[in-house]
Amino acid sequence: MAAPTAIKTAIDLAVAGELAQQLRVDSVRSSTSAGSGHPTSSMSAADLLAVLVGRHLRYDWDDPANPGNDHLIFSKGHASPLLYSVYKAVGVVSDEELMTTYRRFGSRLEGHPTPELPWVDVATGSLGQGLPDGVGIALAGKYVEEAPYRVWVLCGDSEMAEGSIWEALDKASHYKLSNLVVMVDINRLGQRGPTELSWDLDTYHRRAAAFGARVIVIDGHNLGEIDRAMAQAREGGHGQPTVILARTRKGRGFSEVEDREDWHGKPLPPEMAERAVIELGGERHLTVRGPKPEAFSRPARAAADGAAVKLPSYALGDKVATRKAYGQALAAIGVRRDVVAMDGEVSNSTFADIFAQQHPERYFEMYIAEQQLIAAAVGFSARGFRPFASTFAAFLTRAYDFIRMAAISRASIRLSGSHAGVEIGADGPSQMALEDLAMMRAVHGSTVLYPSDATCAAALVATMADLDGISYMRTTRGAYPVLYDSGEQFPIGGAKVLRSSDHDQVTLIGAGVTLHECLAAADQLRADGISARVIDLYSVKPIDTATLAAAAAATGGRIVVAEDHHPEGGLGSAVVDALTGAGPAQLSVRHLAVRDMPGSGTSAELLDAAGIDAAHIAAAASELTS
Amino acid sequence: MAAPTAIKTAIDLAVAGELAQQLRVDSVRSSTSAGSGHPTSSMSAADLLAVLVGRHLRYDWDDPANPGNDHLIFSKGHASPLLYSVYKAVGVVSDEELMTTYRRFGSRLEGHPTPELPWVDVATGSLGQGLPDGVGIALAGKYVEEAPYRVWVLCGDSEMAEGSIWEALDKASHYKLSNLVVMVDINRLGQRGPTELSWDLDTYHRRAAAFGARVIVIDGHNLGEIDRAMAQAREGGHGQPTVILARTRKGRGFSEVEDREDWHGKPLPPEMAERAVIELGGERHLTVRGPKPEAFSRPARAAADGAAVKLPSYALGDKVATRKAYGQALAAIGVRRDVVAMDGEVSNSTFADIFAQQHPERYFEMYIAEQQLIAAAVGFSARGFRPFASTFAAFLTRAYDFIRMAAISRASIRLSGSHAGVEIGADGPSQMALEDLAMMRAVHGSTVLYPSDATCAAALVATMADLDGISYMRTTRGAYPVLYDSGEQFPIGGAKVLRSSDHDQVTLIGAGVTLHECLAAADQLRADGISARVIDLYSVKPIDTATLAAAAAATGGRIVVAEDHHPEGGLGSAVVDALTGAGPAQLSVRHLAVRDMPGSGTSAELLDAAGIDAAHIAAAASELTS
Repeated sequence: MAAPTAIKTAIDLAVAGELAQQLRVDSVRSSTSAGSGHPTSSMSAADLLAVLVGRHLRYDWDDPANPGNDHLIFSKGHASPLLYSVYKAVGVVSDEELMTTYRRFGSRLEGHPTPELPWVDVATGSLGQGLPDGVGIALAGKYVEEAPYRVWVLCGDSEMAEGSIWEALDKASHYKLSNLVVMVDINRLGQRGPTELSWDLDTYHRRAAAFGARVIVIDGHNLGEIDRAMAQAREGGHGQPTVILARTRKGRGFSEVEDREDWHGKPLPPEMAERAVIELGGERHLTVRGPKPEAFSRPARAAADGAAVKLPSYALGDKVATRKAYGQALAAIGVRRDVVAMDGEVSNSTFADIFAQQHPERYFEMYIAEQQLIAAAVGFSARGFRPFASTFAAFLTRAYDFIRMAAISRASIRLSGSHAGVEIGADGPSQMALEDLAMMRAVHGSTVLYPSDATCAAALVATMADLDGISYMRTTRGAYPVLYDSGEQFPIGGAKVLRSSDHDQVTLIGAGVTLHECLAAADQLRADGISARVIDLYSVKPIDTATLAAAAAATGGRIVVAEDHHPEGGLGSAVVDALTGAGPAQLSVRHLAVRDMPGSGTSAELLDAAGIDAAHIAAAASELTS
Repeated sequence: MAAPTAIKTAIDLAVAGELAQQLRVDSVRSSTSAGSGHPTSSMSAADLLAVLVGRHLRYDWDDPANPGNDHLIFSKGHASPLLYSVYKAVGVVSDEELMTTYRRFGSRLEGHPTPELPWVDVATGSLGQGLPDGVGIALAGKYVEEAPYRVWVLCGDSEMAEGSIWEALDKASHYKLSNLVVMVDINRLGQRGPTELSWDLDTYHRRAAAFGARVIVIDGHNLGEIDRAMAQAREGGHGQPTVILARTRKGRGFSEVEDREDWHGKPLPPEMAERAVIELGGERHLTVRGPKPEAFSRPARAAADGAAVKLPSYALGDKVATRKAYGQALAAIGVRRDVVAMDGEVSNSTFADIFAQQHPERYFEMYIAEQQLIAAAVGFSARGFRPFASTFAAFLTRAYDFIRMAAISRASIRLSGSHAGVEIGADGPSQMALEDLAMMRAVHGSTVLYPSDATCAAALVATMADLDGISYMRTTRGAYPVLYDSGEQFPIGGAKVLRSSDHDQVTLIGAGVTLHECLAAADQLRADGISARVIDLYSVKPIDTATLAAAAAATGGRIVVAEDHHPEGGLGSAVVDALTGAGPAQLSVRHLAVRDMPGSGTSAELLDAAGIDAAHIAAAASELTS
């Protein structure tokens, strides 16, 4: 099939062939100069990239922020020598930068690509993530932006063993992402030997087709076949993503390593590299440019200040679940057209369904595929949207690698995890998030929020929309009394002192359900003549060290922290970390947390069994003050 | 195809039909009595289970420990009313227990199945895990035990959207697990509405076939079709797993809910339940038994005391990477025939390949599929083996949900994560584990180990073999000096004081690469006239509170903790948590950790940039003591 005539192509195939050799030579040179890297994994895909970049990728290299640019994602991030050699070939990275900084300290040419480079959308290097991220970008382009760009993803064959690849293809076909093109570099060899499927292209073909893709099988070193496949892919097909299965040879072009085992992830020693460059036809310094993007302006969005947002309000004392407030507030901020939401088939539990009903055009059902759920959010973030992704907090553990990588991607995504802790009751431990705070606090630059009432939850949802980085809100299943008037401010890094006096003897710290238990405990203690300060630790990270330190000082260092979470890495750790860093102080801390494996039961039974209910908090406080 | 005549079946199909109705009635009754649960998701699969349990599952219900028993796993764990109704039908759970304890506090009949019940192998409830776990059990049966049992897994259709399902089918076909039978209950309706594929059986068929399964499509309410499919599955096929795609109707048998939306996860109100029981033909109390298992004795194993194990030994001062010691020690304990190992296609980096070379019959390559990697370990644990699973520590985040669920499964699995922290150098942050300690410490009952030298690593590998629960060893990429003589003991929960005197002014605490930096810092400090105590915190959880408290007391509460990990949830938190719990004490802690996003560089550059090298440790100590 001929390439559509309307699209200008910039270089002919003969030049593309030269370019491919240049990319190989530069992949060898750069990795040898760095003393590490993956030249052979780059060489197998050089022909694909030469034809793509020279003839099909519509990208204005002088304007990486151009909203009409295609996207190019190296899901096989270890082929960074190839990607950076492409950047040299289009003239945005100099040969000197490539040869003297790649993989060195302080360089933007890191071992695996990150958005420190303006042409990189998402960090890769943990395999099986670039494609799911690309699905998110393609969703944005097709459904929200109605943009002309295509998303081109280079996958390795080893990563086809990751389940996340199939979550991605499933969603790509479900959402008819004809703007997505997946190029699989099937070079047969993984890190430690042959891949599971080697060159069994028939099986790859059957799998990708069964998952709804249009599949084109080519010789990945035949420029004409590559060109025809990409032209066909560019046409878009019939509401399907395109998967180009390219049979290639690892280390292609240098006979000493081509299709040989034991050459994964190793630079060629200098003498070998010299021979490789000679066999590849010597150094070249072509500068090429492919087709430009179509003119495209982003759709106008609501003012970023969210002036039109009217948050829900709640009456003091009414019982409202924070998860409900999450959904209501999310729907309210949905008047901002940069807000998008997605959920893992539990939107009637997380209450993301309220947003879905009010803003169906910006809601994406990801079904039970939490990795793709997070990746979709990352993709939307790469396009400048403000995604909110929700599921049960316990099931966010399914996507921890994606959350970790989202931080490296410099993505700004907002996560909501419902059904925290033993409070959920009868469903049992598989549905109880008891590790999520530890997991989310350890993410670089994360914000971790844990509201105790609906007013706070709603306010924090609005705040999250404008936060950079990874932010997380933990919500509770059950309905508890509203504690704050609407209009109350909840700054990130703050805390609320709900009970205090000049003669407080002990500080009680909680969040979520345990804050309500702390309040009840304070009432019990007061009846016993003990005055307790109560702190609502709605901002777990960053944490309000000043308020904590003041409380500790005022109450003789006597602190009870109660949390519906395992003892490690949650509220208790956050408090102790903060106070320890706050300077010398005598602390007497009782840390109440879920230390045994819970089972089923009512909320009250399980909070009691875990020792985190009002009675246990009061008892711990009494002991401290006795 | 007729059922093979050699296999005795216990009940005829007419009885199976009665049994199916009983299972439905009991699913309705139990969930209504509990006030929560999933009756409709149980009713769709009742016919499958009646035929399976009555005619095909070979199981001695009086002897759940019988090693020849088939395995029955509800990957759709929310259908617990059905599973528990089966237990009633075979006479191991009374109607009273089912009706009065299901989902109640203290009951073994939890909301989702756990191995608190002797007939349950693995906890389910986080979807997409039961099948991967079953793959592990089938691997054990086929390759190590050469056992006659089959593994029958009931999947829901919603969970087919999880990538882990496809990792599992991929491995099941790769390993030719003809002893694995997957029954997919395609009832069309998920939690919040229709599933992604609804009743598109053709697409399910193409996908499962493309992933290498023998596929049988049936009407899941036609007992004859079910029976023929299961008989065919039981024959084993041609080195393929069998996938039975059963078209069913959610809530089958009660017209008010059958195939209706909005009835997911809801018990029927009592009046409705009464009508349901009537429509289903009333209560029944059949007790049935299916075929017995074949006689099978486990192969003899090496003595559990590991008497024959000869651990590698290392010379003081030699530079050996702890990851290398891991592989060498793992190979050494491989003389124990209950030890199995698996890796995620990086065995030449984790050094699991040393085990693979010496014990190929007990090594399982899981390729780049970390969720299945952990699930395989869980499956082997369910069969009484001692699995060790390894990959880069960063990529264990990919399987956090599986690790969390392994704890709920009461599995004993051993994990090794290599390439910890910025120490890895040029590869950059995607490959750097900086959250793994936080993640693993938060797992219930976990043991977290972080050796600093080869002697310690090797000793701990041997210890891990006999640990219960989830144990984790963090290993380091680079080679560092051996610090301990072989024969040194490293008890779990211990720590080593490597430098101490009667006049120590400050305590330096590290593990892995930072311990070596602490030692160098102590040398620098001594030159400056400052005496530092140095602690090797090889056991992060449990932690040696006594040694830490003694050091804190001896050094005026002045402590520097240095760790190659983000600041939250790692060594620093572990130390502070321990000391805070140890009673009132004035602490002045400097916590050195990786606070910025790292890039590429050498180990030395990155340790310096993160502020965790010897110079920064010495400076922090100087500041504390000035």
